[in-house]
Amino acid sequence: MTDVTGSLDLIKRGTEEVLPEELLIKKLQRGKPLKIKAGFDPTAPDLHIGHTVLINKLRQFQELGHEVIFLIGDFTGMIGDPTGKSATRPPLTREEVIENAKTYEHQIFKILDPAKTTVLFNSSWMGEMSAADLIQLAANHTVARMLERDDFNKRYTSGQPIAVHEFLYPLIQGYDSVVLKADVELGGTDQKFNLLVGRQLQEAHDQEPQVVITLPILEGLDGVQKMSKSLNNYIGITDKPEEMFGKIMSVSDDLMWRYYELLSFKPMQEIEAWKKDVEQGANPRDIKIRLAEELVGRFHSSEMAEKAHQAFVARFQKGQIPDEMPELALTASGCGYPIANLLKDGGLVKSTSEAMRMIKQGAVRVDSEKISDHSLIVDAGTTCVYQVGKRRFARISIT
Amino acid sequence: MTDVTGSLDLIKRGTEEVLPEELLIKKLQRGKPLKIKAGFDPTAPDLHIGHTVLINKLRQFQELGHEVIFLIGDFTGMIGDPTGKSATRPPLTREEVIENAKTYEHQIFKILDPAKTTVLFNSSWMGEMSAADLIQLAANHTVARMLERDDFNKRYTSGQPIAVHEFLYPLIQGYDSVVLKADVELGGTDQKFNLLVGRQLQEAHDQEPQVVITLPILEGLDGVQKMSKSLNNYIGITDKPEEMFGKIMSVSDDLMWRYYELLSFKPMQEIEAWKKDVEQGANPRDIKIRLAEELVGRFHSSEMAEKAHQAFVARFQKGQIPDEMPELALTASGCGYPIANLLKDGGLVKSTSEAMRMIKQGAVRVDSEKISDHSLIVDAGTTCVYQVGKRRFARISIT
Repeated sequence: MTDVTGSLDLIKRGTEEVLPEELLIKKLQRGKPLKIKAGFDPTAPDLHIGHTVLINKLRQFQELGHEVIFLIGDFTGMIGDPTGKSATRPPLTREEVIENAKTYEHQIFKILDPAKTTVLFNSSWMGEMSAADLIQLAANHTVARMLERDDFNKRYTSGQPIAVHEFLYPLIQGYDSVVLKADVELGGTDQKFNLLVGRQLQEAHDQEPQVVITLPILEGLDGVQKMSKSLNNYIGITDKPEEMFGKIMSVSDDLMWRYYELLSFKPMQEIEAWKKDVEQGANPRDIKIRLAEELVGRFHSSEMAEKAHQAFVARFQKGQIPDEMPELALTASGCGYPIANLLKDGGLVKSTSEAMRMIKQGAVRVDSEKISDHSLIVDAGTTCVYQVGKRRFARISIT
Repeated sequence: MTDVTGSLDLIKRGTEEVLPEELLIKKLQRGKPLKIKAGFDPTAPDLHIGHTVLINKLRQFQELGHEVIFLIGDFTGMIGDPTGKSATRPPLTREEVIENAKTYEHQIFKILDPAKTTVLFNSSWMGEMSAADLIQLAANHTVARMLERDDFNKRYTSGQPIAVHEFLYPLIQGYDSVVLKADVELGGTDQKFNLLVGRQLQEAHDQEPQVVITLPILEGLDGVQKMSKSLNNYIGITDKPEEMFGKIMSVSDDLMWRYYELLSFKPMQEIEAWKKDVEQGANPRDIKIRLAEELVGRFHSSEMAEKAHQAFVARFQKGQIPDEMPELALTASGCGYPIANLLKDGGLVKSTSEAMRMIKQGAVRVDSEKISDHSLIVDAGTTCVYQVGKRRFARISIT
């Protein structure tokens, strides 16, 4: 029982919901390895750190001795979506799916233990399924229940089309749990409905239903919106060490504690102790450095993490760049902001011709990197420290 | 063109809708045999005369030289409906389907020309279909469109469950039209939605869409509700000649003209002429006899029809039963009306013990048939002529 309580604490760390918790306890009490399922879309193998919240949870299950099934949902990906809506997705070929799976494995095995991970493709069983079987599966669910799902409901009530086959996808995902006899399925909070379908189908197939564990969607660097590539507030797990280190150091202190809970493997007791230290006056920057080192270490190596740390210290702490400097935002007209205008409008030079000259002399740095291209266009959505000469600094956001 | 106009008149006789008529004209103008599809449920092979409205239309197409495809929708029948709703239908076996098909053939070939009829089972192609293909098919239709269908809409808005697979059935029916390259599909008015799905799927498969022809649901002997076994207002096509003859003679004069239009193969000009005769004083009973003879002749033989006619005349016209007699309705409490109470409450005897005695003496007839069972329970929903002795008559409806 001590064991089960300890396991439960680790499993529940950072989760949104465990449904139902009593069943999870019952399954843990049996003392046998559980099958932990998590499904992944085969079309987007390029992960950011937000995706790893779920993978970290899988790793915690592995640490507790359970078996992880990393399921690539290639069946629907290979069919493609022939609805012809705004974004028709071309079907993936078998080769592309295998290629994407390799990229996945390369990325996830930085976190998961390959020896305790089974990578499967749902096309293995779904490809064999007949239309008759699919009809029987569809008989297990009602239209009204499907339309209760948040996104379907919104689309239906606002008159946006839902194609009939979209009602079949949750059933296929649920059927995967039947085939795998999953004990637990993990997913983001937006997946809750689909995960519960799995429970229902397992019960219809006389299996003990899986426990559904939902995990929060990680906030991006801004601390407000969800982390995503399109919002440009993400940390890619293939980001270079210094970039990753810098991005982590840029998050707010509040967000740091959130990231600690969801991204760090440090025990919660330790993290809570640091929180108390900070409340009593310790500098949160030092705690943030430990998180940056842990994450860069995980996705690169501890040597790389140490080097990134030193570079960061050299750049930001050894006075080369002041802690305090003017902060301002400029609005790009069109696709970006030309560097010369940016330096002038940001008050770092008096004219664009001065800007050009300073760039030519090698006296302009962006985030400490010397630039030489005077026709550089700075992307909207970025925030950088611009430096002209030794003393002129400004942190400028382009919106 | 004269030909097309003539064909069109015959095709449109008695139909509800021809969608779109211009396309039908275009198809007829090509002068080639068209493929006429009609689908049938494999579970209910015991037809009543209401079902023959559609089969008669198929026959008219055959007379015009077209090819009839009598499609037995056994695919879903063999899957069965596993939803577990109030009436769970056990799946049919292959043997049962074949048995039912034989019964169908036996019945329909009293109307259709076997040489111009192809009997097919949709399991031939649907049994081969994969889940992936079915998903692609389902992508052609939206949930909103499905919920526009009358019956789905009523069930959804009233909170009655619709299982997801029920959305797949119209798509399968429509896909049958794609496989068959149907030019025309016939169905009852309640089938209109499904038939239009066929058009849509054919277009999605780059075929010229089928013309949809809907036929009215035939009213039963009461002239009000649709003909159905459960309402006991039907003429079975395996009813005995005298029974069939008598039932046709029992319909109202108005309903007779409706039956003429939908059930008779007499040309409409001829029927219109008789209508004028009746308006000018001819006895409609004589016209009704011709209909009864035609239908009994079709489902039995002209000799049987003639014998049934004579028996009818003997019973009803030779004065054994008066033309005029008291007519009344009695309300059954429970499942039926005990004969002795019926005779007493109908005013034909003074007491139930008199009723018992008269039955024992063989002096009681129901529709001219002597009865001997004094514990007989008369079903609700029936109307019969009850006779006690030589002179006491009453036409009594049990409601």
